[in-house]
Amino acid sequence: MKNLLVAQSGGPTSAINATLAGIISCAQISDQIDNIYGAVNGIEGVMEENFIDLRDKIDNSEALQLLCQTPAAALGSCRLKLNDQAQLARIIEVLQKNSISYFIYIGGNDSMDTIAKLSLYCRVHNITGISIMGAPKTIDNDLCGTDHCPGFGSAAKYIATTFSELERDCHVYARKAVTIVEVMGRNAGWLTAASALSRLNGGKGPDLIYLCESPLNPESFIRDVQQKLSEEDAVLIAVSEGVKLPDGKYVSEIVQPQATDNFGHSYIAGASSVLETLVRNKIGCKVRSIELNLMQRCASHLQSATDEDESRMVGMKAVQAALNGESGKMASIIRTSDKPYRVTYGLVDIDVAANAEKKVPADWISESGNDVTQKMIDYLTPLIQGESRITWKNGIPETMVLY
Amino acid sequence: MKNLLVAQSGGPTSAINATLAGIISCAQISDQIDNIYGAVNGIEGVMEENFIDLRDKIDNSEALQLLCQTPAAALGSCRLKLNDQAQLARIIEVLQKNSISYFIYIGGNDSMDTIAKLSLYCRVHNITGISIMGAPKTIDNDLCGTDHCPGFGSAAKYIATTFSELERDCHVYARKAVTIVEVMGRNAGWLTAASALSRLNGGKGPDLIYLCESPLNPESFIRDVQQKLSEEDAVLIAVSEGVKLPDGKYVSEIVQPQATDNFGHSYIAGASSVLETLVRNKIGCKVRSIELNLMQRCASHLQSATDEDESRMVGMKAVQAALNGESGKMASIIRTSDKPYRVTYGLVDIDVAANAEKKVPADWISESGNDVTQKMIDYLTPLIQGESRITWKNGIPETMVLY
Repeated sequence: MKNLLVAQSGGPTSAINATLAGIISCAQISDQIDNIYGAVNGIEGVMEENFIDLRDKIDNSEALQLLCQTPAAALGSCRLKLNDQAQLARIIEVLQKNSISYFIYIGGNDSMDTIAKLSLYCRVHNITGISIMGAPKTIDNDLCGTDHCPGFGSAAKYIATTFSELERDCHVYARKAVTIVEVMGRNAGWLTAASALSRLNGGKGPDLIYLCESPLNPESFIRDVQQKLSEEDAVLIAVSEGVKLPDGKYVSEIVQPQATDNFGHSYIAGASSVLETLVRNKIGCKVRSIELNLMQRCASHLQSATDEDESRMVGMKAVQAALNGESGKMASIIRTSDKPYRVTYGLVDIDVAANAEKKVPADWISESGNDVTQKMIDYLTPLIQGESRITWKNGIPETMVLY
Repeated sequence: MKNLLVAQSGGPTSAINATLAGIISCAQISDQIDNIYGAVNGIEGVMEENFIDLRDKIDNSEALQLLCQTPAAALGSCRLKLNDQAQLARIIEVLQKNSISYFIYIGGNDSMDTIAKLSLYCRVHNITGISIMGAPKTIDNDLCGTDHCPGFGSAAKYIATTFSELERDCHVYARKAVTIVEVMGRNAGWLTAASALSRLNGGKGPDLIYLCESPLNPESFIRDVQQKLSEEDAVLIAVSEGVKLPDGKYVSEIVQPQATDNFGHSYIAGASSVLETLVRNKIGCKVRSIELNLMQRCASHLQSATDEDESRMVGMKAVQAALNGESGKMASIIRTSDKPYRVTYGLVDIDVAANAEKKVPADWISESGNDVTQKMIDYLTPLIQGESRITWKNGIPETMVLY
């Protein structure tokens, strides 16, 4: 008996379940796979043998489609960092006990670290017969080894759409006002850059864009805002949650005591409210801050059809590679052309993706440090194209509950 | 020459431009109306004679449809409270000078106050030949004299959809966590109640709902949260921005100095962050707060088709009534049946709507004060039905710019 096990990890996205759907559909058509299991709550569920039977839960194409439009990880998630050999031994024990020949882990940098450690453990201990594959997922788009990350396009579409709506909202009053919108992104500004896509149909979009890759000098920031306020009444600003001061400290650290999450990352929040206070004190005009918060990662009703398709395909690629005997690799998206937009799917060694962060290149940020260049627009535009066919019931989107 | 003038006022909504579209279309088919003008920035634009020619701007049905899906007031808005006779005299002078026989003002309570004052001024000064009509608009749904308010249904659909997505997001981790979501509503909890619609397809929705009509006792609140945390890992809470303590003070006043807007309303923000701090101090679990902020009022891509249709019809009703010689009235929606949902359109005296606030009835709130009853669900459900046909271009919704 050869079984497949899939689990999801890290922060939710709108498209992570499309990857799950791709994995299930590709496993369903294979005669090399008997049971298709899902572990609940990521690697924690693997260690606890908390499995559900996905052949049973997803037994028709309507269910598969419903899974694709369900936001956040349908199998649950975790943020567990594997630190000792006993955990790795336990995972391998569970996989062997349940005849798991194929283990696919959908996640971001930290999840790819889990795959890397498991692969290394197998090599060191001469454990064979288990293909361990990663499928990328993160709204942050900061994974190395792939042109872009499944889940990012839908979050970018949410951000572009929301900025286009906020722009209209902010411009209704003939009164000087500043609106600062904080977008997710600890150390990579991809999501914040997507705010510029709100200009694609001729809209003004954000007047100023500050990514975390470009240091924010408070004096220059105030000068930028004053300049824009002299040109127009409503100034709309996009800022990464992880935007930093020239000395490398997070803007949010100005007022917030340092705290860290399970992975030792600094806990960041409130850059926009720090900047709101700065504008109020230095300029004195009406000012407000908005955090796009969890909505930017779970608004499945705004899925990018491109992202949904690619997320499925990446899941299918991971299964196909596992069936071909590959292990310790991550499925990836390779862009072959911008216009027309074309991609193929490949594999990269898991170490390329594990723990590394892909940041925005310097020449994709304007020299002034407060906007993005055409290279960024060309890169981002294809990723938000198309609207997924969402089914609605009773006025809200239908979703699926797996456990 | 008989001209029509329309203006928009107060906070933006996703459907206020559908009412504008209804007004323009009804004026276009009338042979009693020559020019169709829009004043920019509400009554301020009237006083400044800042008009645009709407026959010229909206000259085909595609433009009309694009106007309907454009968020926020396409003519701009203002928050000016008319306080002296000189302002009223100036407005009437401008209307007479421009041969305005029909003036339609789209807005909420404060805008209806403007209509009431203008109507009274005309009666007192024997000014005839100008029909002055109100068309209701507010996401708060707090206008008296109408079953519900244009703009509310779309905001309610945003809130119901967002809570259904947040519920999935909050449930992915096997870790005790509380998420407190703050919904707009200063003194009326209609929008916060709409969070319960996220349960329509069997979802759990918010575990606790606190409207501003029901006093929030901090001790009971903590007991409620502890009880829910004992039943499940993720607790999702909906709270009105204007939720009050048993002594009548706003929860947000616990930490915030009192400030008022131009109409003398208390400026309220931060109830959710006050409650977040309370949960952190009293329970100590992971807790976060989210404000739905401007997104809930400008997310036109989530328009309720029912709301869009009714918003148009209300605008048409206001024009039709003005053409029939009515003045000093507000067009209104009259619900004749819940199941099947049926409405007709009527007129109410402007004094019924001006400055009054319609609050949630006591028996639409559960006895525990932390949820809504079936009466609320029956009232709200029809208002979010149907999805507007939004046209997308380059991955974002198309919008229209009038000035």
